[in-house]
Amino acid sequence: MRHLLVAILLILPFHKCFAQNTDSITISRIFTYSLEQGKSYERLRYLSESIGNRLSGSANAEKAVQWGLKTMQADSFANCWLQEVMVPHWVRNDKESLVMHLNGKKTPLNIFSLGGSVPTPKGGIKAGVVEVTSFEELEKLGRKNIEGKIVFYNVPMKQRFYHTFEAYGDAGKYRWAGAQNAAKYGAVASITRSLTLALDDNPHTGGMGYVEGVPQIPGCAISTLGAERLSSELKSNPNLQLTLEMNCETLPDKLSHNVIAEIKGTEFPEEIIVVCGHLDSWDKGHGAHDDGAGCVQSMELLNMFRDLNIKPKRTIRVILYMNEENGVRGGKKYAEEAKAKGEKHIAAIESDAGGFTPAGFSSTCIDDSKRTWFRQWKPLFKPYAMFQWDGDGGGVDIGPLKEQGTLLIGLRPDSQRYFDYHHTDIDTFDKVNRRELHLGAAAIASMAWLLSEYGVGATSSK
Amino acid sequence: MRHLLVAILLILPFHKCFAQNTDSITISRIFTYSLEQGKSYERLRYLSESIGNRLSGSANAEKAVQWGLKTMQADSFANCWLQEVMVPHWVRNDKESLVMHLNGKKTPLNIFSLGGSVPTPKGGIKAGVVEVTSFEELEKLGRKNIEGKIVFYNVPMKQRFYHTFEAYGDAGKYRWAGAQNAAKYGAVASITRSLTLALDDNPHTGGMGYVEGVPQIPGCAISTLGAERLSSELKSNPNLQLTLEMNCETLPDKLSHNVIAEIKGTEFPEEIIVVCGHLDSWDKGHGAHDDGAGCVQSMELLNMFRDLNIKPKRTIRVILYMNEENGVRGGKKYAEEAKAKGEKHIAAIESDAGGFTPAGFSSTCIDDSKRTWFRQWKPLFKPYAMFQWDGDGGGVDIGPLKEQGTLLIGLRPDSQRYFDYHHTDIDTFDKVNRRELHLGAAAIASMAWLLSEYGVGATSSK
Repeated sequence: MRHLLVAILLILPFHKCFAQNTDSITISRIFTYSLEQGKSYERLRYLSESIGNRLSGSANAEKAVQWGLKTMQADSFANCWLQEVMVPHWVRNDKESLVMHLNGKKTPLNIFSLGGSVPTPKGGIKAGVVEVTSFEELEKLGRKNIEGKIVFYNVPMKQRFYHTFEAYGDAGKYRWAGAQNAAKYGAVASITRSLTLALDDNPHTGGMGYVEGVPQIPGCAISTLGAERLSSELKSNPNLQLTLEMNCETLPDKLSHNVIAEIKGTEFPEEIIVVCGHLDSWDKGHGAHDDGAGCVQSMELLNMFRDLNIKPKRTIRVILYMNEENGVRGGKKYAEEAKAKGEKHIAAIESDAGGFTPAGFSSTCIDDSKRTWFRQWKPLFKPYAMFQWDGDGGGVDIGPLKEQGTLLIGLRPDSQRYFDYHHTDIDTFDKVNRRELHLGAAAIASMAWLLSEYGVGATSSK
Repeated sequence: MRHLLVAILLILPFHKCFAQNTDSITISRIFTYSLEQGKSYERLRYLSESIGNRLSGSANAEKAVQWGLKTMQADSFANCWLQEVMVPHWVRNDKESLVMHLNGKKTPLNIFSLGGSVPTPKGGIKAGVVEVTSFEELEKLGRKNIEGKIVFYNVPMKQRFYHTFEAYGDAGKYRWAGAQNAAKYGAVASITRSLTLALDDNPHTGGMGYVEGVPQIPGCAISTLGAERLSSELKSNPNLQLTLEMNCETLPDKLSHNVIAEIKGTEFPEEIIVVCGHLDSWDKGHGAHDDGAGCVQSMELLNMFRDLNIKPKRTIRVILYMNEENGVRGGKKYAEEAKAKGEKHIAAIESDAGGFTPAGFSSTCIDDSKRTWFRQWKPLFKPYAMFQWDGDGGGVDIGPLKEQGTLLIGLRPDSQRYFDYHHTDIDTFDKVNRRELHLGAAAIASMAWLLSEYGVGATSSK
C-alpha cells in the first residue's frame, strides 16, 4: 500500500508536468496568434462603427445577426445557423428630458429613460422631489411624504470595492426596483443616480422592472454630475420642482435570433462547450465593451482553431446571444431547446464584462467539484497574468444552462473602467484597446480548448 | 533541538498571521482612503491641463517644480525643499516635416524629431531611402548602399510579448542608436518606426544618442501608419526620395530642480525610503501617464499618511525628479549628494510605467536577499490583485542609488496600453482612469509603509 502510494506520488507530478508543458505550448500558440493575427479588433470596429448599437427588436440588431452569421460562415469550418427567439421590443423614441425649476430658471439635467419604462403623459410630469439614499429611508418617509412626488435615489456606487462589479451589485437595485418601490407610496416617477464610479455628465441606461399590482411609473437615470447638482440644490431649495418628460414605449414582441456556429468534437461530439457573448446592446453608444467585445472574442475561436489546426475532442458552439440586456430571451430559449433535445452541455464560457485585460475566470456550478477541476489549469494562465479564479458567477446568457449541471465560466477582465462606459453614449470603439481585447479572446479560446481536451472531471468521457 | 524546532514552527505561522492581519488592516485603510478621497486624479488634471508638458529646461518644467513644491508644502506635515540640478536644454522648435516625393506628388508623413537630435540644414535634406529591419541588415548593406541616403528602420515592436516593456526593450535600440549606426556608413539622416504596438498616425518621440567620432545626423520617428505607407511605396518605387526638415537645437544647460518632501522616521530616522516619479516629460501631449501619474501618486502618500495618522518608523522622502527623459541628471545628482552626505537609503520605489491598474512590483538590488525579503508581503496585496512580483527593474531615476545597496522597487501596472500613449500628443489626462491611478497611489504608499515598519531584512535596524 505504501509503495503503491509512493509510486503514484512519483508518477503524478511528472505526468502532470508533462501534460502541462504540452498544454502550455498550445496555449502559447493561441495567445501569440491572437496578439499577432487576431481579427477581434477589426471586427469590433465594424460592428461598432458600421452597424452601431443593437437593442433587441431594432433594425440594427437584425443587421448584427446577419453580420454575425455571414462572418462566421465565411470564416470557419464550422456549421452555422440561426435560432429563432421572440424578443421584447422597447423603444426610447425622441423625448427624454428632465428640467429643474429654480428661482424662475429652467435648468436641464442629463437623463436617459430606463429600459422597459413606461412614458410620462405628453407634456411631462411636473412635481416636487424627495431624495433618498436607501429603500429603508423611502419606507420611513412613507406615503404622506412621497405621494405625488418624484423619488430621487441618490445612491453612489461605492468606490471602496476593488472589484467594481461588487459596487454595481450593491447599488444596482435602485435602478431595477426604484420605480416599483417608489410607486408603492404613490410616487409619480423615479430618478436613479447613474450606476458608474465616474463623476461626469453621461447618464447610464439599463433595465428596470415592474411588479404586478403596483402602478407603473416612469423611471430614468440621471448623470452623476446631474445627481450632485440636484442634491445640492435640494439642500437649499427642498421644494424645487422638476419636469420629467419621456415618450418611450413597449411595442409587441419581435422575432429575432441567436447566432450559432458549431465545431463538432472529434472524440466526444455529444459533449458540448458553449463560448459566447451577447449581440444585443442598449441603444446608446456602440455597445463596444457591452458586449460587442464578448461577441468578437468568441468568434475569434473559429478562425484561430482553423488556422492553428486545433481539432477539439468535444463539440464547441460559439453563440452570439440575443436579448441579454432586457429579457435574456436568447439564453432561455437556447437552454430550453437544449433540454428538449437532451443535449449535454458540459461547460459554457461567457465574456460579458468588457474587452479589458483578462484577470481570470469566475465560475458557478451546482456540482462544486467541477469548479475545483477547472481551477487546476490556473498555472497555465500565469504567463498571461490571469490570477483571479475564485470568484462566483458565469454569465447572464448561460445562466439558464445551470440546472442541467453545466459548469458556467465567466471571463473576468480588469473591472476598473467598465462602469465608466457601461450603457452610455461613450461605450464606443475607441474605448477598446486592441491588445486587451485580443488577450481576452485568447483566454477564452484556451479555456475552451482545455475543456474540449479534458472535459470537466469525473463525469466526462475519458 | 527537535522540540525547539517544533515550538518555533508552531509559533511562527501564528506570529506571521497576526502581523499580517494588522498590516492588512493598515493597507486596507490606505486603499480605501485612496479610492474614496485620494487627490491624485484632480492633481493630475491640474498638472496636465493647466501646466501641460514639461521638457527639462522649459518654462513649463519650472512651473511644475513650483507647483510640486507648493502643493506638498501646503498639504503635508513634511519638510519640503528643492535640490538644484543642471539639465540639458533641447528644444524642438517649429519645423519637423517629412515629405515623400512620388510621381511628381508630395505626400507628408507624420514624424517627430527625436530628443537630442541635431537639425537638418535649413530647407531640409532631400535624399533616397534605404529600409532596414535590423542593424545586421544595415551592416550587410554597407557604405556603398547607404552613403548619402536616409536610413529607415522599420522594426515593429513585437506583439507577442505579454509585457509590453519587453517589446519596448527589444525594439528600443533603433530609436536610441539608429542615427549613430546609420552615420557610420555615411547616411545623412535616420527615421525610426515609432515605438508603439498600435497602428495609428501618432509619432512617438523619445531620446536618441550620439557617439564620439561618428558624424551627428538628424534622427526622427515616423508614425506606424506612416511607416507602413513608406514601406509599401518603397516596394514599388525603391528610388523614391524624401525631404526631411527639422530645426531642433541643443541650448546650454539650464538650472532646474528635484522637488523633495520628507517625513522623518519616528524610530530610525537615519534609514531613508524614497517614493518617486519624474516631473519632466517630453514636449508632447500632457505627459499624463509619463510621468505625471507617478508624481501625483507619490505625492498622495503625504496627505494620506497625515489624514490616516500613519507615522512611519523610518524616514520617507517623496521625490519629484527632474530630467528622467533626456539625461537622468536629477537621479544622478540626488544619488551623488546622498553619497556625499553618507545618507543611508534602504529602499526606493518609483512609479514610471503609467497610471494603469497596478499588477505588482518589480525589483533590483545588489543584495538579492532584500528582494526575497520584500516579496514576503505579496499576500498582503492579493486583495488588490497585485500578483506580479518576480520581474527585474526599479526605475530610471532611482537607478543611481543601486550602488549603495538600496533595494530598488518599480510599481508595475498593467502594461497593455502604455505604449499607445508614450511620448505622443495623446498622452493626455483623459487617457487616465481615476480608479486605476488611485489604486497605484495606494500600492506605493502601502509598500512604503511596510518598508518603514520592517526595513529590508537583516541589515535593517530592528
